[in-house]
Amino acid sequence: MSLTRIHNMSISLDGFATGEPQSADAPFGHAGERLHEWMFATRFWGAGGTEGVDDAFAARHNIGCGAEIMGANKFGPPGWQDDSDWKGWWGPNPPFHTPTFVLTHHPRPPIEMAGGTTFHFLQASPAEALATAAEAAGGLDVRIGGGATVVRDFVAAGLVDHMHLVQVPIVLGRGVRVWDGLEALEDSYDIEAVSSPSGVTHLTFTRRVGDGA
Amino acid sequence: MSLTRIHNMSISLDGFATGEPQSADAPFGHAGERLHEWMFATRFWGAGGTEGVDDAFAARHNIGCGAEIMGANKFGPPGWQDDSDWKGWWGPNPPFHTPTFVLTHHPRPPIEMAGGTTFHFLQASPAEALATAAEAAGGLDVRIGGGATVVRDFVAAGLVDHMHLVQVPIVLGRGVRVWDGLEALEDSYDIEAVSSPSGVTHLTFTRRVGDGA
Ligand SMILES: NC(=O)c1ccc[n+]([C@@H]2O[C@H](COP(=O)([O-])OP(=O)(O)OC[C@H]3O[C@@H](n4cnc5c(N)ncnc54)[C@H](OP(=O)(O)O)[C@@H]3O)[C@@H](O)[C@H]2O)c1
Ligand SMILES: NC(=O)c1ccc[n+]([C@@H]2O[C@H](COP(=O)([O-])OP(=O)(O)OC[C@H]3O[C@@H](n4cnc5c(N)ncnc54)[C@H](OP(=O)(O)O)[C@@H]3O)[C@@H](O)[C@H]2O)c1
Repeated sequence: MSLTRIHNMSISLDGFATGEPQSADAPFGHAGERLHEWMFATRFWGAGGTEGVDDAFAARHNIGCGAEIMGANKFGPPGWQDDSDWKGWWGPNPPFHTPTFVLTHHPRPPIEMAGGTTFHFLQASPAEALATAAEAAGGLDVRIGGGATVVRDFVAAGLVDHMHLVQVPIVLGRGVRVWDGLEALEDSYDIEAVSSPSGVTHLTFTRRVGDGA
Repeated sequence: MSLTRIHNMSISLDGFATGEPQSADAPFGHAGERLHEWMFATRFWGAGGTEGVDDAFAARHNIGCGAEIMGANKFGPPGWQDDSDWKGWWGPNPPFHTPTFVLTHHPRPPIEMAGGTTFHFLQASPAEALATAAEAAGGLDVRIGGGATVVRDFVAAGLVDHMHLVQVPIVLGRGVRVWDGLEALEDSYDIEAVSSPSGVTHLTFTRRVGDGA
């Protein structure tokens, strides 16, 4: 059965997945790169990186995923919708290598990139978007790539089978919080916490058998 | 040197140290007892309890503390100020065994309990309250006992040397959040995270040498 998964979603101790304001110069606002330093240090990110618990979690990002769904604010800085040349942050060969669905109220024609990534722009409910992405994934899993708003919406809609959050030891104070609207998540998910020598804590949410879809 | 310490402050994944509404029947509101089950299972709490990492952290609560400061909402349910017989939740022999200062805008005369606890009622700034409690502690440390509002106020005022939070794998969604107003706490504290087989994660904040007081 095809699953819907979230991986490597990094949050501050107070639950923010991005700082503010988001801009072309600072995609994560005042958070800078601090939410992802744990990942940059792993072998998953680059040769010579660590191969401990952080790498074990990080590397699952690509395994078995046949499509990604992301939010408009992950795809580009505020205003990218007015720039017909914008093709995402990731250069000519983006790290998705699958059909990638960008949720936006300003859809445009698909963009085919090198390496297997095609960006599709979609205005649809979470359930509709997931059906479209699942079809494109051809039996593989669908990854929900963020940001926080999209993660929240898909979890609240009961569409997510597995969620991996990485709690980084900083207090951001402001930004977009992943927890809002998710009261009583523990009723639907088995939750594990694993702290890493790097200082982060990996939180995994595995949907309980019999719950939801 | 006498330190100011916080221990066993339990929070949900989304940072709430209590649910809502607080009442005589449900001191933690919709959180019930879920924030403290990890502690009830330890030997610190009762004979026959566990002696692993949760107990190691929990047991530091009493060590070396000569006074406690708590907020009005920890001392009693909403309205206790109108009940001249209210002596706290803890029965005739409260577990503090030291002078215990209750911050309230409705001060009353001190109440001497069995076992060394005397409740003093204080309307004062955090710094003033700490000076009073430190004097009463006679060279020992002062514990800030909660709730979230008082913890936040003392941390924000730069008065806390050590803070131990226990993150419980539930999402409360509402209540009083410990993180509000504490942006950039990582600039002043070394932070460690240690996950326990019980499912909770112990977060410790140790004030950096040279920072603050
Ligand atoms: N911490 C991490 O691991 C991580 C991971 C990924 C991203 N991020 C960061 O998170 C930030 C983005 O997160 P965010 O919460 O601000 O936004 P987001 O989730 O990326 O995108 C939200 C936006 O997507 C569009 N959208 C969402 N659902 C839609 C639907 N059903 N139909 C049509 N459009 C829809 C809307 O934009 P429009 O109305 O403008 O179309 C909405 O404002 C960025 O800073 C990004 O870099 C962090
Ligand atoms: N999770 C845990 O480990 C933990 C630990 C302890 C307590 N708790 C729970 O947390 C809840 C209480 O937390 P809370 O954040 O609602 O309130 P709180 O921090 O216990 O008390 C706040 C109240 O104390 C009084 N106060 C605070 N500072 C003062 C000052 N400088 N001068 C005079 N009065 C002052 C004010 O009450 P007045 O204006 O009414 O006087 C204020 O509303 C309770 O449910 C308690 O059981 C949880």
